[in-house]
Amino acid sequence: MNVNGKPYRTIWTSPDRHAFEIIDQTLLPHQFTTIRVGSFKEAIYAISSMQVRGAPLIGATAAYAMWLSAQENSTLEALRLTGDKLIRSRPTAVNLRWAVNELLNRLTSIPKTDRPSRALEFAEEVCESDVESCRRIGLAGLKVIKALPEFKKNRRPINVLTHCNAGWLACVDWGSALSPIYAAHAEGIDIHVWVDETRPRNQGASLTSFELDQQGIPFHLISDNAGGHLMQEGKVDLCLVGADRVTRNGHVANKIGTYLKALAAGDNAVPFYVAFPGTTIDWSIDTWRDIPIEERSGDEVTLIRGRLEDGTIADVSIGPNNISTANPAFDVTPSNLITGLITERGVAKANEHSLAKLYPEHSQLIQ
Amino acid sequence: MNVNGKPYRTIWTSPDRHAFEIIDQTLLPHQFTTIRVGSFKEAIYAISSMQVRGAPLIGATAAYAMWLSAQENSTLEALRLTGDKLIRSRPTAVNLRWAVNELLNRLTSIPKTDRPSRALEFAEEVCESDVESCRRIGLAGLKVIKALPEFKKNRRPINVLTHCNAGWLACVDWGSALSPIYAAHAEGIDIHVWVDETRPRNQGASLTSFELDQQGIPFHLISDNAGGHLMQEGKVDLCLVGADRVTRNGHVANKIGTYLKALAAGDNAVPFYVAFPGTTIDWSIDTWRDIPIEERSGDEVTLIRGRLEDGTIADVSIGPNNISTANPAFDVTPSNLITGLITERGVAKANEHSLAKLYPEHSQLIQ
Repeated sequence: MNVNGKPYRTIWTSPDRHAFEIIDQTLLPHQFTTIRVGSFKEAIYAISSMQVRGAPLIGATAAYAMWLSAQENSTLEALRLTGDKLIRSRPTAVNLRWAVNELLNRLTSIPKTDRPSRALEFAEEVCESDVESCRRIGLAGLKVIKALPEFKKNRRPINVLTHCNAGWLACVDWGSALSPIYAAHAEGIDIHVWVDETRPRNQGASLTSFELDQQGIPFHLISDNAGGHLMQEGKVDLCLVGADRVTRNGHVANKIGTYLKALAAGDNAVPFYVAFPGTTIDWSIDTWRDIPIEERSGDEVTLIRGRLEDGTIADVSIGPNNISTANPAFDVTPSNLITGLITERGVAKANEHSLAKLYPEHSQLIQ
Repeated sequence: MNVNGKPYRTIWTSPDRHAFEIIDQTLLPHQFTTIRVGSFKEAIYAISSMQVRGAPLIGATAAYAMWLSAQENSTLEALRLTGDKLIRSRPTAVNLRWAVNELLNRLTSIPKTDRPSRALEFAEEVCESDVESCRRIGLAGLKVIKALPEFKKNRRPINVLTHCNAGWLACVDWGSALSPIYAAHAEGIDIHVWVDETRPRNQGASLTSFELDQQGIPFHLISDNAGGHLMQEGKVDLCLVGADRVTRNGHVANKIGTYLKALAAGDNAVPFYVAFPGTTIDWSIDTWRDIPIEERSGDEVTLIRGRLEDGTIADVSIGPNNISTANPAFDVTPSNLITGLITERGVAKANEHSLAKLYPEHSQLIQ
């Protein structure tokens, strides 16, 4: 998608093919800076410091990180260790685990010397596949938008509420939850987005606002507290969010606060959809209590990063000094609160049978 | 309550009896500063800029503001105009309207020259009455805490989640939602508070955290998004919030985001109580759609005030420049999501009959 009118992806191989490059998302929307990542250590830092974030992009970054690791030491033992380290760095996102395990499988049977180049091929394949998945999610989600009663009645604009950032910055391109919005906008549909700021890290304020602004899509930034009221007032036609991990029966782990919006959507009969590529589904679990919820640093709650009046970026502390905080980064929205799941293979109900029909190769129900 | 070990109220008559004094709550928790308010204009500014906030404290400030106005011009016509101005300054809080109308009633039949002194008496009476109400709310709420299954089973600590600031800083002393917590702590009950930061103005982070810290009560500051997850995890035994306006049949307007916590409490069988003095009840309405919801400046969403590392207070901007925001300041929690209403006269169910039994003088059901 565009930044200052120029098309970008969120991750790409360096022209010299010795490193990969990313956008430093911790500096957005204030500064647009790309970073060259040339070692496994830098790659781990990019993930844990959230220079890259969003389950699909974390997955792609993990694939590139494994490539750099294979350049450093391509024994299977070393690669398994670095794979474990990657998986532990962001425990909730399942795309990361998927990318690591898939690559390890593919490297096992090939000679040690071929592993680095094979790993790079895989990383680039993950990226291409994610772009195509997200494009298809956009088309599937566009059908959901066109099936809304408000669309059929020609009410304008269509008001979509989203939480966190599940746009192209969370993926390689297009996005998951925002892809249908981009597809609708491209078709000339009058669409407007309510953007949850998404505390504590404000990915809505900093990333989703940035994306929509760059693409010229009308939106309002709101505090996370406002969405319930907007739904009570009939000002939301559709909730559309991404996912960090989906159980095989349709429970969704996503950014903390998603569950609260799903409750409000349910209470106000607003359709609540979750959009994600199939790599986000964890076929090994059906109980949402089995999803590990990452607890992040309390500094994320007390320190807020922003732009001072003179343009410099600074962190301000919002509470008294030395107070205790808790900072669970994700919550789980139970399947009963979800209207539908939008994937690259179409829309499923949030249950095992419906997901299995889209992904028969993964499901024990179908096999 | 205490600030640095010294007891304070939030509002008091200046020793020279020509003005009133308040704590500048916009500077908390970073600076503790009191302000002398000597004119009606300054009083309006104190309310609209939220140097004072919280429905009961706004009511008390309005009474003092009317006193200053009566000193400036004590004709009924002038007083009605200033009363209207006050009511419009914060449309959701009903205590303000109550204080203005009650005082106008009392001043109508007395000589013009007696009005200023009568208005000061009234303001001081409102304060004393609020202190006593809040003390009684604490005792009534303490019974609610002692009736929790977790208390009876001697599980420790009792975990209370609160939203915004309904502590002594929102009232004259003690607080509404926090008063039962102070009462429990004073009795030696092991109590712990989850404090919603309460975006966009962060009254939880800046005021509730400050109060609890000063009183030595254990708490964790959390983002507003976290409460649903904590309830899913069984880490909340009770939700306890304040109110800005309560309809006669028990719908509650309170700080934006309260409704989302009530939904989560309902979904997880967590008791959800609202604490307020009787002056918060608007006996004239029973439909929550009749409650005016104040829309505040969008700057509150994009600019966050905090303390820089060097100790200076600054605002940082969190989104791209010049974006649109929406900022509804309150939402309404429908009565069906409320377990009980804690007042200075005891605990009521959230319905007209139960409230009418506590306040027979106001209810058409009883009269």
